Amino acid sequence: MEDSKRMYGELAVFCGNANPGLANEICTCLGVPLRGIDIIEFPNENIFVKLHESVRSQDVFVIQATCSPVNRSIMELLIILDTLKRASAGRITAVMPYFSYGRSDKKDQPRVPITARLLADMIGVAGADRFLTLDLHAGQIQGFFSIPGDDLSAFALLSGYFVAKAIPNAVVVSADLGFAKKGRNFAEKLQLPMAFVEKRRTGPQSQALTVIGDVRGRNAIVVDDEVDTAGSITETVHIIRENGAQDIYACFSHAVFSPPATERMRAAGFKEVVTTNSVPVAPQKQFPGLVVLSLAPFLAEVIRRVHEGRSVGAYLNE
Amino acid sequence: MEDSKRMYGELAVFCGNANPGLANEICTCLGVPLRGIDIIEFPNENIFVKLHESVRSQDVFVIQATCSPVNRSIMELLIILDTLKRASAGRITAVMPYFSYGRSDKKDQPRVPITARLLADMIGVAGADRFLTLDLHAGQIQGFFSIPGDDLSAFALLSGYFVAKAIPNAVVVSADLGFAKKGRNFAEKLQLPMAFVEKRRTGPQSQALTVIGDVRGRNAIVVDDEVDTAGSITETVHIIRENGAQDIYACFSHAVFSPPATERMRAAGFKEVVTTNSVPVAPQKQFPGLVVLSLAPFLAEVIRRVHEGRSVGAYLNE
Amino acid sequence: MEDSKRMYGELAVFCGNANPGLANEICTCLGVPLRGIDIIEFPNENIFVKLHESVRSQDVFVIQATCSPVNRSIMELLIILDTLKRASAGRITAVMPYFSYGRSDKKDQPRVPITARLLADMIGVAGADRFLTLDLHAGQIQGFFSIPGDDLSAFALLSGYFVAKAIPNAVVVSADLGFAKKGRNFAEKLQLPMAFVEKRRTGPQSQALTVIGDVRGRNAIVVDDEVDTAGSITETVHIIRENGAQDIYACFSHAVFSPPATERMRAAGFKEVVTTNSVPVAPQKQFPGLVVLSLAPFLAEVIRRVHEGRSVGAYLNE
Amino acid sequence: MEDSKRMYGELAVFCGNANPGLANEICTCLGVPLRGIDIIEFPNENIFVKLHESVRSQDVFVIQATCSPVNRSIMELLIILDTLKRASAGRITAVMPYFSYGRSDKKDQPRVPITARLLADMIGVAGADRFLTLDLHAGQIQGFFSIPGDDLSAFALLSGYFVAKAIPNAVVVSADLGFAKKGRNFAEKLQLPMAFVEKRRTGPQSQALTVIGDVRGRNAIVVDDEVDTAGSITETVHIIRENGAQDIYACFSHAVFSPPATERMRAAGFKEVVTTNSVPVAPQKQFPGLVVLSLAPFLAEVIRRVHEGRSVGAYLNE
Amino acid sequence: MEDSKRMYGELAVFCGNANPGLANEICTCLGVPLRGIDIIEFPNENIFVKLHESVRSQDVFVIQATCSPVNRSIMELLIILDTLKRASAGRITAVMPYFSYGRSDKKDQPRVPITARLLADMIGVAGADRFLTLDLHAGQIQGFFSIPGDDLSAFALLSGYFVAKAIPNAVVVSADLGFAKKGRNFAEKLQLPMAFVEKRRTGPQSQALTVIGDVRGRNAIVVDDEVDTAGSITETVHIIRENGAQDIYACFSHAVFSPPATERMRAAGFKEVVTTNSVPVAPQKQFPGLVVLSLAPFLAEVIRRVHEGRSVGAYLNE
Amino acid sequence: MEDSKRMYGELAVFCGNANPGLANEICTCLGVPLRGIDIIEFPNENIFVKLHESVRSQDVFVIQATCSPVNRSIMELLIILDTLKRASAGRITAVMPYFSYGRSDKKDQPRVPITARLLADMIGVAGADRFLTLDLHAGQIQGFFSIPGDDLSAFALLSGYFVAKAIPNAVVVSADLGFAKKGRNFAEKLQLPMAFVEKRRTGPQSQALTVIGDVRGRNAIVVDDEVDTAGSITETVHIIRENGAQDIYACFSHAVFSPPATERMRAAGFKEVVTTNSVPVAPQKQFPGLVVLSLAPFLAEVIRRVHEGRSVGAYLNE
Repeated sequence: MEDSKRMYGELAVFCGNANPGLANEICTCLGVPLRGIDIIEFPNENIFVKLHESVRSQDVFVIQATCSPVNRSIMELLIILDTLKRASAGRITAVMPYFSYGRSDKKDQPRVPITARLLADMIGVAGADRFLTLDLHAGQIQGFFSIPGDDLSAFALLSGYFVAKAIPNAVVVSADLGFAKKGRNFAEKLQLPMAFVEKRRTGPQSQALTVIGDVRGRNAIVVDDEVDTAGSITETVHIIRENGAQDIYACFSHAVFSPPATERMRAAGFKEVVTTNSVPVAPQKQFPGLVVLSLAPFLAEVIRRVHEGRSVGAYLNE
Repeated sequence: MEDSKRMYGELAVFCGNANPGLANEICTCLGVPLRGIDIIEFPNENIFVKLHESVRSQDVFVIQATCSPVNRSIMELLIILDTLKRASAGRITAVMPYFSYGRSDKKDQPRVPITARLLADMIGVAGADRFLTLDLHAGQIQGFFSIPGDDLSAFALLSGYFVAKAIPNAVVVSADLGFAKKGRNFAEKLQLPMAFVEKRRTGPQSQALTVIGDVRGRNAIVVDDEVDTAGSITETVHIIRENGAQDIYACFSHAVFSPPATERMRAAGFKEVVTTNSVPVAPQKQFPGLVVLSLAPFLAEVIRRVHEGRSVGAYLNE
Repeated sequence: MEDSKRMYGELAVFCGNANPGLANEICTCLGVPLRGIDIIEFPNENIFVKLHESVRSQDVFVIQATCSPVNRSIMELLIILDTLKRASAGRITAVMPYFSYGRSDKKDQPRVPITARLLADMIGVAGADRFLTLDLHAGQIQGFFSIPGDDLSAFALLSGYFVAKAIPNAVVVSADLGFAKKGRNFAEKLQLPMAFVEKRRTGPQSQALTVIGDVRGRNAIVVDDEVDTAGSITETVHIIRENGAQDIYACFSHAVFSPPATERMRAAGFKEVVTTNSVPVAPQKQFPGLVVLSLAPFLAEVIRRVHEGRSVGAYLNE
Repeated sequence: MEDSKRMYGELAVFCGNANPGLANEICTCLGVPLRGIDIIEFPNENIFVKLHESVRSQDVFVIQATCSPVNRSIMELLIILDTLKRASAGRITAVMPYFSYGRSDKKDQPRVPITARLLADMIGVAGADRFLTLDLHAGQIQGFFSIPGDDLSAFALLSGYFVAKAIPNAVVVSADLGFAKKGRNFAEKLQLPMAFVEKRRTGPQSQALTVIGDVRGRNAIVVDDEVDTAGSITETVHIIRENGAQDIYACFSHAVFSPPATERMRAAGFKEVVTTNSVPVAPQKQFPGLVVLSLAPFLAEVIRRVHEGRSVGAYLNE
Repeated sequence: MEDSKRMYGELAVFCGNANPGLANEICTCLGVPLRGIDIIEFPNENIFVKLHESVRSQDVFVIQATCSPVNRSIMELLIILDTLKRASAGRITAVMPYFSYGRSDKKDQPRVPITARLLADMIGVAGADRFLTLDLHAGQIQGFFSIPGDDLSAFALLSGYFVAKAIPNAVVVSADLGFAKKGRNFAEKLQLPMAFVEKRRTGPQSQALTVIGDVRGRNAIVVDDEVDTAGSITETVHIIRENGAQDIYACFSHAVFSPPATERMRAAGFKEVVTTNSVPVAPQKQFPGLVVLSLAPFLAEVIRRVHEGRSVGAYLNE
Repeated sequence: MEDSKRMYGELAVFCGNANPGLANEICTCLGVPLRGIDIIEFPNENIFVKLHESVRSQDVFVIQATCSPVNRSIMELLIILDTLKRASAGRITAVMPYFSYGRSDKKDQPRVPITARLLADMIGVAGADRFLTLDLHAGQIQGFFSIPGDDLSAFALLSGYFVAKAIPNAVVVSADLGFAKKGRNFAEKLQLPMAFVEKRRTGPQSQALTVIGDVRGRNAIVVDDEVDTAGSITETVHIIRENGAQDIYACFSHAVFSPPATERMRAAGFKEVVTTNSVPVAPQKQFPGLVVLSLAPFLAEVIRRVHEGRSVGAYLNE
């Protein structure tokens, strides 16, 4: 790491309260200590931040998924960025393994916000020079940022897991038509056929699901980018099981798991549920069959390369 | 239109060289003259613009699809915007019925641009206060603009055409998995079932197409947002015909028709090809069965409402 | 209001969830309806906003104190502003009767943020064209905004109350040296003498209070800009009572009342506590002797004048 | 200094015409030459700047208090910054030991400017990447800058002087209620009691001063941030002497000394007047008892640390 | 003026201390009062501004040439702009009949500033929405502004004067090769031949002048954009007189007249010197033969048209 | 080059399609390889860019004259800049040996653009941190850029060529009055007299040329910044030949050579035409007597110095 230190100063890794576990793992991989920071909430709910040591001219990475408590995690991140900027950090990278408000990415009806763009602007205004995200809900959100950055993917990690598993007679099922193209890439990597579940409104309160493609007698891997309340994915499980699917697996990057996700996932009867620690999965949200792959070695290597000015793209293609 | 004139000054409509036909139609609908503008290309290829009359404090709309010749259309639009800004126009709306570079909307591999964001930035920097687009390749491109605006849709116009037609025993086919969700909306509006064509690489130079869903014995309406070289859509025709589809219709917003689109479309044997004049279809690009619906009444009403400060959303929901 | 409508379009008042009571009162004073808005929190905690009707070209005021729940109120405000901007509002004024994070207004130690500046920037970035605040913790926070605006004061309302009351033999006491100058203005208006309470650290965990000036045998009006946990103000009560003060009144603009403020205020034995509804005082936070003066008529008149392009300064000096 | 040179290029110190003496002292402390610059005023009063040597990629500090002639010093600073930026300096820090227009930091009446914010913006626009100031009139002015920076303080230097002096039976007197809090910090450091002088308007042209707190028989140290015309401070001297104060000392950071400050100070009968060279005190402005402490060693150490990317905060807390 | 008032609010004209005479004349032409403003310079040289009345939502024009005292005039203008912006003016136009620092418009040697760009940026940052200038030293300075505006010309006024005069047997002489093209336009309008004076360095301290073209026996009109110290123009007089010129006239837009301009102009023996009041010519700077044409009717008509949203271009071409 | 690498990372040189020959020559001079880049134009005319290797943290120079095809060259440059920015380049310099739209540098009539400013803004917005240009049409265009940069000149190269040639009995002729001042500098360097050709409209379609100064019996060097259609320069040849000029040479920086430049230049009978390769001169545009001096060694040395943080100004003055 000798040569790069000269370019942006020493590597300094901080985290907020969103996912300190992942941050600690990353620091272990990098062989650097997690830097000290006080994050205090006063009785009036105002968040106050103070860094333990100087970051002057250093190359700072702040690891903070904008996960639950979402609005607090966002404000915390913004205030940390402002603190670092005013403390004269040399370069600041906001590392957000999960980026919330990703579904608010366009005006698909009149008089609604595009909150993902708002959030991208705020991160830049607060002081970030660069961003690092992972499996943004829509790839286009990269273009919402005015600062450069990299949107990484857990695709290799997750697909590698299933390649190793070699489930016989399987089919990849996309639970959401918006994920159809990425689902196809997943199926292509595993050299498996594909099916879709189409959801359609049939009345003000009712909807019908249709399986398009063949799942009968096959083991199914249901793929998506995130599981929130687990409504869509568990409906998908029911309809494909009705259509004759055998063992059912789930695979997704972000385990958001808003209530009642855990109950639904537990009840759905998955053979295995494979995800990452982009969002921390609290013990009470865990259930049998849940496999959480750690992003730490991957994110650590990317941070190291960014810090040293070496190619990230080359690493991703390895 | 009395009340609104007071708010932003008189309504003034200009166009560049991209689609003057549509601009003229819009002006006819609005009952205003198309404003005079000289657009000269000097021997050194530099574009020069001069407005015939004052636009001081007026409410200006510039109608310019960024279609072929693409880079010239873009430069022309930017220079017109700069001219209007420096001529002290009251408000400037860039009306782009077709927005090129829409497919360059994310970094899906390392070291590539996000040209759609670049273009959105340049339009704002050049002087536009607002944008009006139609069926952007990805709805998220709205969020690339730092200025407010509206992304309209030809969806109602196109789906209305097929509702009136009432083709019996039909199925909606999405030619591209990226259009799966919008295709579903189209099918839902027509109360028709749906099928997908999945394309997959099978080697460095080869690929395989699979029909997912049922098309046998049905009349098919193949839907997409635009037809460029017509490669995907005509492959789709072949595979669904092999799978037993009967009459085949095509329906899409933007007739980009890059070579050899016309030859391919002509040869594909569509029953009917329904599109709009967002991009002008030159006579030599037309073929039997091509139906071009005019966007002029729709765009004129939107422009009128924007000018008068009346709801556009309410009109869209009518 | 006829003439002004032409300038910025119709007056439209919205509010978030922070103080709808005040917003409703203001609308009653203005004789306009509070506009409809859906503010939904999804299970994943993401806030979603949708306006009921068009605001195109209208003159919009959003009333939202950034009070408890502080970070949610801020995010809500920012998302509403983004929604209004993208819905093509004519002009947007963020009305924040209470502006949180006001104490984070300078770096008085190394490596801390200036969150008030960050907040001011975010409000502008999100879409506000103007701001309206009331008794900012430091007047300099006006200068943190890059957009124009007005910082109003409840000073006339509060001092007017005490002028009418005409408490005999009184002294004004400033509970915080940072409020010394504004306290002097209050005393000057009431033509009363003044005293200070000075707090000083005497060790890592201990501090001493000193009364500077004469309170013995006098009725005291303790003044400040806000009461948060009520620590300082109730300490002040104790020390001036020890020094011989008689009846003790409190007077401040913002009843933040973070726990355990209510218990402390209740126990302190004030004769009367006079404040405003800049922050809503929930029933369970109220106590005997608490007088909450409504800012609604005042804020309504200011909004009316801003909307009509008439002088606010002239009104303040009346 | 070896390691840091690599980060921002060579250290380069320039100054304008405001306080070349201080700049030379700082360079001596740093062991670097003051860089050559021509600053010419043409007969039409236009200022012209030319650097003697290249600053390409270097780490430049411009030392220029914005003191008398104020508006010329400001313009000179801005033009130097523009010159450095266009000469491709690597990083530019505006070092302003005195920052004028600090009292214009809020709108405390309608229709007045916030010139301190304007000035902060102009310094950023002209090309500064960072600022260094000293005892800003209000700490909040830090938040007026959109660029990072450090507001230093002569507090340690000045209080250290009085700690060493150990004046018996002393009291600290704040001459301005706006300085009450900082005065308290000074008194706390010296472990002395405190008194205030309150000024109040008693009519359109008249005002009354009151001493709040006990000064009788004590030696007084009157503290403030700056002395301009010396009106307030000499009134304070009179009123506390009337109230029985013995020896009177003055202590403040900035010796602005606008006419007739020198006459007033000379006449006021101070035992000693202690200040710094943030503003140069011309020989004709000096008087017996005036002690000017040099900021040069302090500023030089801060500049060295900023240049080398080492902690400034740690140095301040030493 | 009825219709336009609705667009930007009432017309309001202010001026600083640079040329109140011209501002008063303009107001007389417009039939509006010059608005009241206090511009105070405190003993510490800080300029303070306060408007007498509200400008909320009004259409404000500030008339301030940036002439001597140059740096003070600039600061005054910037502070007035900030005041107007923060007072919520509807639109602000900076009217600068003379724009100083125009010669600092490019880097024609290394390590010099482009102060004209800096000034243009500062005017925009301070709050101007538009600019109005007159005969900028280089037309390209228009492009330095990021805000729209109009650079007017005294060309019609000045050439009209000479057309009416109909001097027989005349030649137009350009005193500066940088003015050659504009000089040609002047000659073309008067249908006169043209000559140039070329100045060339012949050594470190010496230079030679050459007349290129024919002046013998002719009456000469020497043209330029401004006369500063009058060095160039009076050297031109000497060389063309040596070459046989008869009566010599001078014609230029801006009478900057820095010392020793008046002495030189007086001594040069002009038949007549024709200029404008873009810069006020103090009585002691005047001399026999000096004709100052007032720009007031011209500027008033332009301001009226800008305010009313009517064409300025059409007026200029009349 | 050792020391500098630490400052901005490795030197990386790219080029677009405008002048790869010059870029290759520059790389040879620098001893670095030209970096690999794919620039693809899709059938829909959208340009797509992909870098072969990482540029993370590197010091990138993009060599792209904005010459024919002008609008495509511009778009290509902008998209390359966006790609580099998003690929996290350390510093990006846009090297434009020819900068088109330079004549659109001011509003010299109402309602026209200032396209050169627009272009400068777009280059900054797209991602350039610095610019390098050569003999901009007007030096003021430097001030259109908000980013720092250097405008170089081929003056030394071109004048050096003629100094070496030592043409006897010569005169320098300026073909355009806008080039008069730079022509004078050229003449001064060669210690030659000077003449001008003045062009004047004599009617709507007719114009007259006049030679001002003495060319009879002399060899003439006609100088200008660029030759576009060669209209002006060949008219100049005719008129000076009519006035008795002997051998005629041409000398200019940019061989734009728009049709019918080659035919005109060939027919004009120049003794020699001396220019540079700022714009590539295609073989079919070449003609006898054309001498193209390569800028590569000069530009390579400047790039090296910028990269290494060494003085460019010092090199230019050598």
